[in-house]
Amino acid sequence: MSKDYFRRLPKHIGIIPDGNRRWAVNNNLDKKDGYYYGIDPGFQLYEIMLELGVKEATFYGFTQDNTKRPSNQKQAFTKACISAVNNLANKDANLLVVGNDKSAVFPKELLKYANKRVKFGRGLININFLVNYDWKWDLSNCNVINGQKKSLINNIASSDISRMDLIIRWGGRRRLSGFLPVQSVYSDIYIIDDYWPDFKKDHLYEALKWYQTTDVTLGG
Amino acid sequence: MSKDYFRRLPKHIGIIPDGNRRWAVNNNLDKKDGYYYGIDPGFQLYEIMLELGVKEATFYGFTQDNTKRPSNQKQAFTKACISAVNNLANKDANLLVVGNDKSAVFPKELLKYANKRVKFGRGLININFLVNYDWKWDLSNCNVINGQKKSLINNIASSDISRMDLIIRWGGRRRLSGFLPVQSVYSDIYIIDDYWPDFKKDHLYEALKWYQTTDVTLGG
Repeated sequence: MSKDYFRRLPKHIGIIPDGNRRWAVNNNLDKKDGYYYGIDPGFQLYEIMLELGVKEATFYGFTQDNTKRPSNQKQAFTKACISAVNNLANKDANLLVVGNDKSAVFPKELLKYANKRVKFGRGLININFLVNYDWKWDLSNCNVINGQKKSLINNIASSDISRMDLIIRWGGRRRLSGFLPVQSVYSDIYIIDDYWPDFKKDHLYEALKWYQTTDVTLGG
Repeated sequence: MSKDYFRRLPKHIGIIPDGNRRWAVNNNLDKKDGYYYGIDPGFQLYEIMLELGVKEATFYGFTQDNTKRPSNQKQAFTKACISAVNNLANKDANLLVVGNDKSAVFPKELLKYANKRVKFGRGLININFLVNYDWKWDLSNCNVINGQKKSLINNIASSDISRMDLIIRWGGRRRLSGFLPVQSVYSDIYIIDDYWPDFKKDHLYEALKWYQTTDVTLGG
């Protein structure tokens, strides 16, 4: 599928990679084991986005809410997030990890990437990764600066993440689950029923094909 | 359709009544004339929600973004919002109008209901109506209070509006368009392709039937 096929390419895609545990159960695995199978799909997606020329992508890693899950699941998704970042360090991306790094559940291994952008290789795409993210934490100090012609939301923890044009959620749930409330206000939302570990290229193409049919009004 | 049919009834439903102008064009009317036909559907919905026992509903009236539209459209949707409130004043609801009432485009006729809840008749349901609403205006002073066990978002302009369980959007667009970013973080979102003036009872039943199949995890 070539670059030119999609006339309107979203600049920034948000990814909610849901369904790892349900996938594991369906495949006679323990729930916690699903997360491992969620790493490779992210890199398949990364490659296609580079090919198409997408400029920015945000992956929903895990949230503070998620850390209330059984401890073996918590360990498994934390480990998967660390592996994903270590893999990405060998690629060409500008990584920004956003999450509450003051908390004990924030992985020590990722502290060096927390809340600042780090360039890997040729830095061909901005990849944001939400790790121990919490929407209340994100908004906790927000305020608005009113400029000449527009007002800007300021001081949110995720302020280095731009507005998302398109959000794709795997696993069938039709909700945002606290995913970047400010950057998602105008996002078009596309739901894929398949679970995230069953990712295939066509999922992205299908979402982008649908995106061609939407208008962008930014609330106007 | 009886009350008992829906085992899980959302306490609070958000309504995005989109598609009025597209409906007008399809019916050989001027775009602006679509809004008038959006009033009655709201009252049909009100009656069914009372019947089912829904406790709270929020209707997306118009936004500050919308006021950039051609002036005859602006006049038409403003007039429709005023008519809707005047009709509701003869029913049994607790009305809360939320929006920037310091702005010149906020309808004078609705100032007496702005940003405080007013009881009509027996007050059987809480109806929130967003009028000249703007998500940036809503969040402009937000902060978080950390209590013993949980943190609360505080000082948002819409703080008297509770979390929405289900959001139903008419008119086929799959996005929130700035609709209450804080109260929508965990909402299940259901899209109806028909335009809002073509509302029929079955739209709500279809959404509620789907809602039975979702789980509520609040991000956990």
